[in-house]
Order: sequence, then structure tokens, then C-alpha cells
Amino acid sequence: MMWALTAPISAVVAVVFSIYLYFYVNSKSAGTARMQEISEAIKEGARAFLKREYTALAIFVVVMAVVLTLALGIFMDMGVEIGPAYIFGSICSAIAGFLGMEVAVRANVRTANAAQDGLNKAFPIAFRGGAVMGLSVVGLALLGISVVYYLTGRPELVLGFSFGASAMALFAKAGGGIYTKTADVGADLVGKVEMGIPEDDPRNPAVIADNVGDNVGDVAGMGADLFDSYVASIVAVMILGASEALEQFGLQSLGDISAYTTLPLMFAGLGIIASIIGIAFVRVGKKGNPGKALNWGTYFTCVVLIILTFLIVYFLGYRLEVWGALTVGLIAGIVIGITTDYFTSIDRSPARRTAESSQTGAAINIISGFSYGLVSMFPPLLGIAIASAAAFFICDGIGPGFGVYGVGMSAVGMLSIVGMIVAGDAYGPIVDNSKGIAEQAGMEEKVIDIADRLDAAGNTAKAITKGFAIGAAGLTVLALLAAYQEIVQKATGNAIGFDLMNPLVLTGALIGIAMPPLFSAMVMLSVGKNAFRMIEEVRRQFREIPGLKEGREGVKPDYAKCVDIAAKGALKELMPASIISIGVTLAVGFLGGIEALGGYLGGTIFSGLIFALLMANAGGLWDNAKKYIEAGELGGKGSEAHKAAVIGDTVGDPFKDTAGPSLNTMITVMSLVASVFAPLIAAFALL
Amino acid sequence: MMWALTAPISAVVAVVFSIYLYFYVNSKSAGTARMQEISEAIKEGARAFLKREYTALAIFVVVMAVVLTLALGIFMDMGVEIGPAYIFGSICSAIAGFLGMEVAVRANVRTANAAQDGLNKAFPIAFRGGAVMGLSVVGLALLGISVVYYLTGRPELVLGFSFGASAMALFAKAGGGIYTKTADVGADLVGKVEMGIPEDDPRNPAVIADNVGDNVGDVAGMGADLFDSYVASIVAVMILGASEALEQFGLQSLGDISAYTTLPLMFAGLGIIASIIGIAFVRVGKKGNPGKALNWGTYFTCVVLIILTFLIVYFLGYRLEVWGALTVGLIAGIVIGITTDYFTSIDRSPARRTAESSQTGAAINIISGFSYGLVSMFPPLLGIAIASAAAFFICDGIGPGFGVYGVGMSAVGMLSIVGMIVAGDAYGPIVDNSKGIAEQAGMEEKVIDIADRLDAAGNTAKAITKGFAIGAAGLTVLALLAAYQEIVQKATGNAIGFDLMNPLVLTGALIGIAMPPLFSAMVMLSVGKNAFRMIEEVRRQFREIPGLKEGREGVKPDYAKCVDIAAKGALKELMPASIISIGVTLAVGFLGGIEALGGYLGGTIFSGLIFALLMANAGGLWDNAKKYIEAGELGGKGSEAHKAAVIGDTVGDPFKDTAGPSLNTMITVMSLVASVFAPLIAAFALL
Repeated sequence: MMWALTAPISAVVAVVFSIYLYFYVNSKSAGTARMQEISEAIKEGARAFLKREYTALAIFVVVMAVVLTLALGIFMDMGVEIGPAYIFGSICSAIAGFLGMEVAVRANVRTANAAQDGLNKAFPIAFRGGAVMGLSVVGLALLGISVVYYLTGRPELVLGFSFGASAMALFAKAGGGIYTKTADVGADLVGKVEMGIPEDDPRNPAVIADNVGDNVGDVAGMGADLFDSYVASIVAVMILGASEALEQFGLQSLGDISAYTTLPLMFAGLGIIASIIGIAFVRVGKKGNPGKALNWGTYFTCVVLIILTFLIVYFLGYRLEVWGALTVGLIAGIVIGITTDYFTSIDRSPARRTAESSQTGAAINIISGFSYGLVSMFPPLLGIAIASAAAFFICDGIGPGFGVYGVGMSAVGMLSIVGMIVAGDAYGPIVDNSKGIAEQAGMEEKVIDIADRLDAAGNTAKAITKGFAIGAAGLTVLALLAAYQEIVQKATGNAIGFDLMNPLVLTGALIGIAMPPLFSAMVMLSVGKNAFRMIEEVRRQFREIPGLKEGREGVKPDYAKCVDIAAKGALKELMPASIISIGVTLAVGFLGGIEALGGYLGGTIFSGLIFALLMANAGGLWDNAKKYIEAGELGGKGSEAHKAAVIGDTVGDPFKDTAGPSLNTMITVMSLVASVFAPLIAAFALL
Repeated sequence: MMWALTAPISAVVAVVFSIYLYFYVNSKSAGTARMQEISEAIKEGARAFLKREYTALAIFVVVMAVVLTLALGIFMDMGVEIGPAYIFGSICSAIAGFLGMEVAVRANVRTANAAQDGLNKAFPIAFRGGAVMGLSVVGLALLGISVVYYLTGRPELVLGFSFGASAMALFAKAGGGIYTKTADVGADLVGKVEMGIPEDDPRNPAVIADNVGDNVGDVAGMGADLFDSYVASIVAVMILGASEALEQFGLQSLGDISAYTTLPLMFAGLGIIASIIGIAFVRVGKKGNPGKALNWGTYFTCVVLIILTFLIVYFLGYRLEVWGALTVGLIAGIVIGITTDYFTSIDRSPARRTAESSQTGAAINIISGFSYGLVSMFPPLLGIAIASAAAFFICDGIGPGFGVYGVGMSAVGMLSIVGMIVAGDAYGPIVDNSKGIAEQAGMEEKVIDIADRLDAAGNTAKAITKGFAIGAAGLTVLALLAAYQEIVQKATGNAIGFDLMNPLVLTGALIGIAMPPLFSAMVMLSVGKNAFRMIEEVRRQFREIPGLKEGREGVKPDYAKCVDIAAKGALKELMPASIISIGVTLAVGFLGGIEALGGYLGGTIFSGLIFALLMANAGGLWDNAKKYIEAGELGGKGSEAHKAAVIGDTVGDPFKDTAGPSLNTMITVMSLVASVFAPLIAAFALL
């Protein structure tokens, strides 16, 4: 029961520490009345979004929980706890998201205010604000898993918890992605294009909705996404560790039947400790480089984790190979992050060549960026391939079942430092918002300059963590596929495989590869539809509120209405895509059977990874190509090249902010649907 | 030896009939001196391209033939005939391409001239011109296979023939695709944009290169591509039919050891007869609809084929299930073609909505078209999935090995009417060119109107045949994967599978899915580089040839130089992509072993299909969205919506004309590399 000491305790420590950081951030001054006014509007908008989102989620989750309890809990006799575990998972993720948002909307204005006293005063506020999100994600996730496992002792019920977290991720990531772009397009199209007022102008009714968008997508959405992957990777390895062979091995070698089942919990606990140490280690001097500080914090966390896990494995008598798999995953994550950075960085040849190609027009800019996006998949896919194979072969020698266990452990390795990763990632929207507030509140040049430097560091950190997140998701879904196989084998008592030459597997795979493109298309087309509603509302306000357009003293637009319309529409648009994702997965399972479903999952993983990488990287590349021109190269702002680059960037926006990031979540959701319903499918499939 | 009667005889009939049609076309009047002059220039350009292409190909083929003979023929003792078979395959395909081009560049001007006497006079010339390509493709392909198999009696050596044909396809399709877009971009950018002279103006040195491009891509390239798929599907089924189980079955049930090995040859022979009947059946009245005539020709060919194959199967005593698999493939091909048509047709909602979205700018046009392109994969992938599963289960009951044989037979079913398909497809560039000639030669309005109607029919027919070709390629590569498995099993004596949970298979698959995107990106980026050279040359001619820009009497640009530069550059740019495709395939095989290579092929098939469908359909959609606006909708030509749609179309051009169509060929080449080298890999792989 060593796990019961490390995992829940470090989880509680994480939560306590994040509450401490919350009060630290909150204790700082929020600046002038004008600054507080802007920040207050963003905060209210964010809350309005969360309220909508959580209401919709609550209905969805309760319905699903009833279905799960009836179909699996009672009918399949899996235990009625599955329903509550599912609800509990979504609640834990929702609380983490809520905490993260609450602190982010406080940290932004306080960072801007502290920037008056210098970089070294402002940076800790922004970073610790991000750390609240990071630590509450890992803390609540691991605490939740520990509670469910402690009470039930059954990894299948932890799977229910994980499934609940994935529902939250779907709403937060895909719904948030649609929301963000809706608000962005709505604000720009009416404000900038039709009315000719500047960006971020307070007269624009959609401006707050737009500011809220950054927090919704990058703080709450990304937090829920990594909460989801984090929990899924741990539960996948728990299921693999609970296979008969591994339980026997644990009993023989360590005298503990659940030794390898609970090992990922311990590793995750150590990951939290390493992340806390890493977070405490991140600091920057008056003339320091915040980007470097963030990256070194990540590397330092990795080193601490490798040492801590080695000590635990060594002294508790676990097989060292398992630690090897974890280390492989961690290193692969870093390497994938760095190579991904190459393809999107403003300093590298892909972004620069794309910027140059803008000189021959928008079409060539798009072809060039798209082409580099296609090339950019190669290194991360190769990285995932090598990491999974290495992890398999390192552990395969221990005994049967350890190979796939090792693959799962490499995913856990990557994801165990999620606390640090999310901290660095949530830092981004905080400093982005703080820069916006500094500008809107008319602060002095020196302060805006510091805010700019903080913001630039956020982009550097984000590039690496984004690659990390996709790599981790890739390994996680592979582990989930193995977990699905294990569950089916347990349910049926037969060994099964997913041989591509089996026509059912192949048919499943061919349908599976079509799903991620379908999902991303639906989500992208949703943005267009939803933006249309938003545009109507913005136009209406300009038309009907007297004095708004002229900026008469005391006249204010109805910000909340815009937030509400965008949020309501986003969640409505999300529904068909979600229902299709879950429905087709179940249909393939119940019609084609367990092997078809295995092939289907394989197909969704393959094409999901492809499109997630393509869209994230091409989107980032177009963004930076535009920024490169805006920095004064190739004619600078307003040139023909710039106009072309803006079109590329606009194409890239829904790629990188809506469709691309939703795919991680979507393939995890599908894998979890398959695993959760596997016993039912194995019993009642048509073929 | 029934096959030896049907297959080679119908192949010879096809060749003879195509020669007859050639003389029929050639016997028509080539019109005025001006028309002949234009046509002559295109003909010379086409010949110049082919000369370059065949020279490069010859070097490549000889080197490969030596490698094959040494490594496989002598070292692995497979028989030295492999080298000659390889060369023979590339030569047969080259001859078919040459014949097709020769007649296409004659038929175009004769169609334009005959249009003066009405639609019913012009149509047969264009269609029969296309039929020469169609029949010489199937005739030479089947004749070549028959000769190799008759002389050696070994399907593995027919595989060498197929591999040779695939080398030709790579050069013609990918090289031709780069060439076409190079010429297009070069002609437009200097001519239209810089010099402000109209499209197709004879002063433009790149205008002939551009006209040649249609023939290079759509006639020779597409012919070589389908030659490749056609041969590959037949040889894959031959290999599957030569498995021990099927040979035993043939011996017992029909008293012929090679009964099921040679059945695809017989079916292909019947497909030729059905195509000839179908071609003869296609005719159109004075007021008729040529588009309908082409489609009805295809349907009629299918019906004839289904009847003929039923009779053969029934009277020769083959199992009826095999005929069922063939019919499934044929019907799936038609259904895939029709559903694909929905997503690109100018009359349907995807193209129209994309056109409407152009009103909000180029970026939204691109997002919309891309999204519909993503959705459009679903029906064909589902179609391939259902067809392959149905074919498998129909035949699986016969005995072991018949399931995968059935999958291969469904591919043969689709491809056996290739004669008709290519005839309809090659009709397109002929009427496209004839329209161009009619305009350039200043013919009367009535004639141009007829040319227009002929051209529109080409687009309708093309939409269906394009879906057909991708579906056929999908089933073919699946059959090749099965053939690869069979070859490896024969070589090693062990049963192997490609289980996704096998880490080697998975690693291979992850690398495999990254290859088609890499290949298409390299090809697309090549267009940019090559177009740059072309632009320099066109500028040089305008600068250095006195009187050219002013259009002084008797001053002519150096058309041939432009053709030569585009052709040379295209073949040069093609090299790295080809070498990487073949090199990575061999590297995965020799490092990861036969299972890794199997997973790799699966991965290339999945992502190859995805990108082939996405690029072909999105490209076609953008094209038609633009045409919809040009037809006067949404503000018509010159409106903001039109400008946005033109950008979308320009993005779509390399998608649909360069990268997308090359992917079929690329995945076939990789599958053939794997099958050809399988015995060597099985013996010497590292893992």
C-alpha cells in the first residue's frame, strides 16, 4: 500500500500549494480603477462562459451517468459505482478549470500592475498564476483517481472517472475552441472591418468576449485536455498492470498483488513533487530571460523526476526496466517538443520561407505553410514510434504483458510532469491578457515593453509544451488501445489481436481514419455558423444603443450578451460533432464487434495524430510568418506580403485554436468510450 | 489454359482497335493553317516533354533493373528474368503513354474543326481519341502480363513487370504533375500579372508549355497511373491465387493447378471486351448530351462485364463467390464515383456554400473548402471499407486464403473497365485543348459554344472516374498488402500477421502514415522552386527577343525552351521525393523487418488515401466554387468574392493536379517495392 502514501498525499500537497499560490497572486495590487474595470469585465465574461458550459455539461454528464449505471453497472454487473465515478471525474476536472480561470483573470491585471516595478516583480505573479492551474489539474486528478481506486480497488471504475474527465475536456476544449474563434471573428469583422474602430476598443461589444476567449481556450480548455490525458494514461497503465500476468509477477517479486497496478499512481505522485520543486525553482532576475527560465524549469523538473522515480523503483524493488520506459517517454517528449518548435519558430527557415512566399500572394503563402505543416509531422511521429518501440522492448524481457505496460509507462512518464507543463502553458494567456490590459489602460511605454517581453517568453514556452502535449496524447491513446485489448480479453477470456489483414479490423480502421477529419471539419464549419450569430448581435448593439458608436461618455455595450451568445452557440454547435464521435464508435463496436472496434481505434489514432500535428504546426507557422513580416521584414505591416500573410494566419486560426487541439480530446474520448463499453460490446456485438 | 485464349487475344484486339481509332481520328481534317500551327506547337511541346521524361526514366530503369537482377535474380536466385520483366513493364507503359499523347494532340484540333459541322460530328473524334489511350493502356498492360506469365509461369516475375510500370507512373504522374503546375504558374505570373497580356496569348513564351501540361498530366500521367493500378491489381490477385491452398483448390475443383491464379487475367480480358463494346455504344445525337453519353457508356460497360464474367465463371465451373466479389468491387466503384461527385459538383451545396463564403474573404473560402474536403473522405472510405469486407466474407466461405483473394478480386472488378474509364478521362484534355484552339484561332461563336458543351461534359465524366480511380487504388494497395504477406509467408514458411499491438507493426505504421504527407509536401514545394526557373526564362525572352512584347509580325517566342526548362526541372525536383519514398520503405524493411514493413505499408495506405481524397476533392471544390461565381453568381467575375475564390482555386491547383494524384502512384510504388524485395528483407532484416 505504498501508493496510498505517495499518491494522495502529494496530490493534497499540490492542491494546498495551489491554494497558497492563489492567495499569493490575489494579495498583489490590482492597479488603477480603469485596470480593475477591464479585468472585472473579463472575469465576469469568463464566469458567464463557465456557467453556460457547466450547465450544459451537467445535463450531459447526468444523462451519461444514468446510461452507464444502467447498462454497465447494473445490467453488466460492473458495479453501480461507475455512474458516480463518471460524475466525480467531470466534477474534479471542472473544479480544476474553475480554479485556473479564477486565478488567471486575477493574475493578468496584477501582472500588468507589477510590471511598473520591473520584470522580476511581474514575472512571478504571471507564472504562479499559471502554476495554480497546473497544480490543481494534477492534484485534483490524482486525488480523484486515488479516492476512486481506494474505495473500489478496481481499475475499471477508475476508467469511469477518466471517462467523466474526458466529457469535460470535450466541452472545454472543442466547445472552448469554437467559442474563442467565434468571438475573435465577430469582434474583428464588425469592429475592425465594418466600423473601422481599432482592435481591443472598449466600444466594441465583442471585445470582452474576445479577451475571455484566450482564457477559455488556453487556460480552461488546455487544462481540461491535459487533465484528461493525464488521467487516461494513468488508468490505462493501471488496467495493464492489473492483468493476470502482471499481478502474478508483482505477487512473486514484491509480495504485493497490485504492485504494478499502483506503480503509475506512485510515479504520478513523484511527478507532482518534481513539478512543485520545478515551479519553486523558476525565477528570473531583473535583466533575466523569462523564456529561458520557463524552459529550464521544465528540464529541471524532468531531472528531479528521473532521480525520484529511480530511487523509488530501486529501493522498493520494482524492475528497473519500468523506470527505463518512463525515462524514454520523458526524453521523447522533450525531443518532440524541440523539433516541433523548429517548424513553427519565427527564427527558423520554414516560417521565414513562408513569409517570403507571401510576396507572390496569399495562395502561395498557404501552399507553403501547408506543405511545411505536412513535413512537420515526420519528427514527432518518428519520435512517438521510436519511444513506444523502445519502451516496449525495454520492458518486454521482464515477462508477458510487460511490453505494452512499458508503452503505457512511457506515456505516464511524459505526463507526470504535466503540473509544470500546464503552469508554463497557462502563463501564456495571463501575460497575453496583461499586455492587453496595459495597452487598454494606457500605461507607459516601459511597462508595455516589459509586458511584451513576458508575452514573447510565453510563446517560446508554448511551442515546446505543445509538442509535448501531442506526443503525450499519442502515447496515451496507444496505451488506451492496449487497455481496451486487455479489458476485452478479460471479458471474453480469449486472446485477441488487431491484425490489419483481418477484414473486420481493416474495415474498422478505414472508418476510423475518416472520423478525425469529419470531426475537425464539423468543428471548423461550426465557427462560421456561430460567428454569424455573433456578428448579428454586435451589429444590433451598434445600431440600437445610442451613442455607442460615437463613444459617448458613460455609454457601454452589453458585453455579457455577446459572451452569452458565443458560448451558447458554441455548445450547441459542439453537440452534433460529439454525438457523431461517440455514436459512430458505439455503432462500429456493436455492429462490427471488438476487432472492428480495435481497428477503428487504431485508425482514429493514426489520422487523429496526423491532423492534430498538421493543424497545430501549420497554424503556428502562418502566425509566425505574419509576425515576421509585422516585425518590419519584407515590406512590413500594410505591404502586399503582409496582406497575404494575414490571410494565411486567418486560415491557420481555426486550425490551431479550434480543430487541431480538439482532436487530442476527441481520440481520447473515443478510446475511452471503447474501453468503458468493451464488456457490453464483447457480449452483444452483431459480428 | 483457358486464360491464354481470352487474355492475350482480347489484349491484341484492344491494341488493334486502338490503332484503327488512331487512323480514324487522323483521317479527319485538321482545319486551317492557323489551327494546325497551334496544334503543331502543342504536339512538338508534348514530344519534347516525353523525350525528356523517357530519357530520365531510361537511366532510372536500367539502374534499377541491374539492381533487381543482381540482388533478387542472382543473389536470391529468383531468376534473372526479373530485370528484363521490369524494363518490359516500363516500356509497355511508356508506349501506351506515347500513343495516347500522339492521338490526343491530333484529336484536339480535329475536334475543333469538326465542331463547325455540329456536336455529333465533333464528339466522336474527341471520344475516340480518348479511347485510343484507354485501349492501349489495357491492351498493352494485359499483353505484357500475359507474355511475362506465359514465358515464366511465375507471378513473382509479373510483379517485376508491375514494378516497372510503377516507375513509369511515378515519372509520368508526379513528374507530370510538377511540370503542369510549373508551366501554369509560369505562364500566368509573367504573362497575365507582369505583362498584362491575356491568357493563352501566343506572345507568351510559356503558353505552349501550359497547353502541353494538360496532355502531360491528364492524358499521359493518368494513363500511366491507371496502367500501374491495373497491372498491380491483377498481379496481386495472381500471387494470392498462387498460394498453396488456392492451387490445391483449383486442382481439386477444376483440375487445373493455376485456375485461380489466371482467373484475374481472364476477367481482365473480358473487361477489355466489355470496354470495347461500351466504347462502340457511346454516341450522341445532334442535340444530345455528351456528358450523359459518357456516363451511360460506363454503366453499360459495367453491365456487359457483369454478364460476361458470370458466364465464364458459371460455364468454366469457378466458384460463383469470386464473381460476387468482382461485382461488389464494380458497384462500389460506381457508388464512390457518384458520392465523390456530390462534394465537387458545381450544382451541389458544398461548392455553392464555399462560393458564398468567398464573400467574407479568401481565408473563409479556404477554410470552407478545406472543411468540405475533410468531410468528403467519409463516403469513399466507407465504400472501400464495405467493399473490402463484403468481398472478403463472400469468398471466405470457399476455403482458406479465399477471403483476401476476394478483396483482390474486387479491385480487379473495379479496374477491369479501365479501358472505358481512361477513354472518358482522356476525352477531357482533348476537348479542353480543342476549346483553347478554337478560341486562339478565332473561330465563330457557334463553334466555341459547341466546344464549350463538349468541355463541360468532360468535367462531369471526370468527377465520376476520379472517384473510381481512387477507390480502385485503395482496393489495389490492400490487395498488394495481402500479396506482400503471401510472399513473405512463402519465403519464410511461417504465417505472419500485422497486428497493431505488435510494437514493430505499430512503429512501422506510425512512420508509414508520415510518408504520404512528406511526399506531397516535397512535390508541392518543388512546384514553387521549378516555377521560379520558368519565370526567369519567360522574363528573359520578353527582355531579349526584340518585338516580342509588342507582338511584331513574324516574331515568335522560343516555346520549346520553356517546355524544356519546365520538364527538366520537374524531373530533377521529382528525384528526392522518389528516392525518399523508395529508400525509407527499404530502410524500414531492412531495419525493422517484415512485420514493421507490413505496418508501414498499412500506414502509407491509410494516410495516402486520406490525403489523395482530401486534395483531389478540396481542389475540385475550389475550382467549381470559382466557376460558380464566374457564371455570374454572387457578383460574378471581378467581384471581391471572385478574387477570394481565385485564391482558393490557386491553392487547390497543386492539391488536385500535383500532390493528390501522385499519392495513388506513390503508395502503389511503395507496396510494390515491399513485395519485390520481400524475400531479401525476410532473409536479411536486422530485427
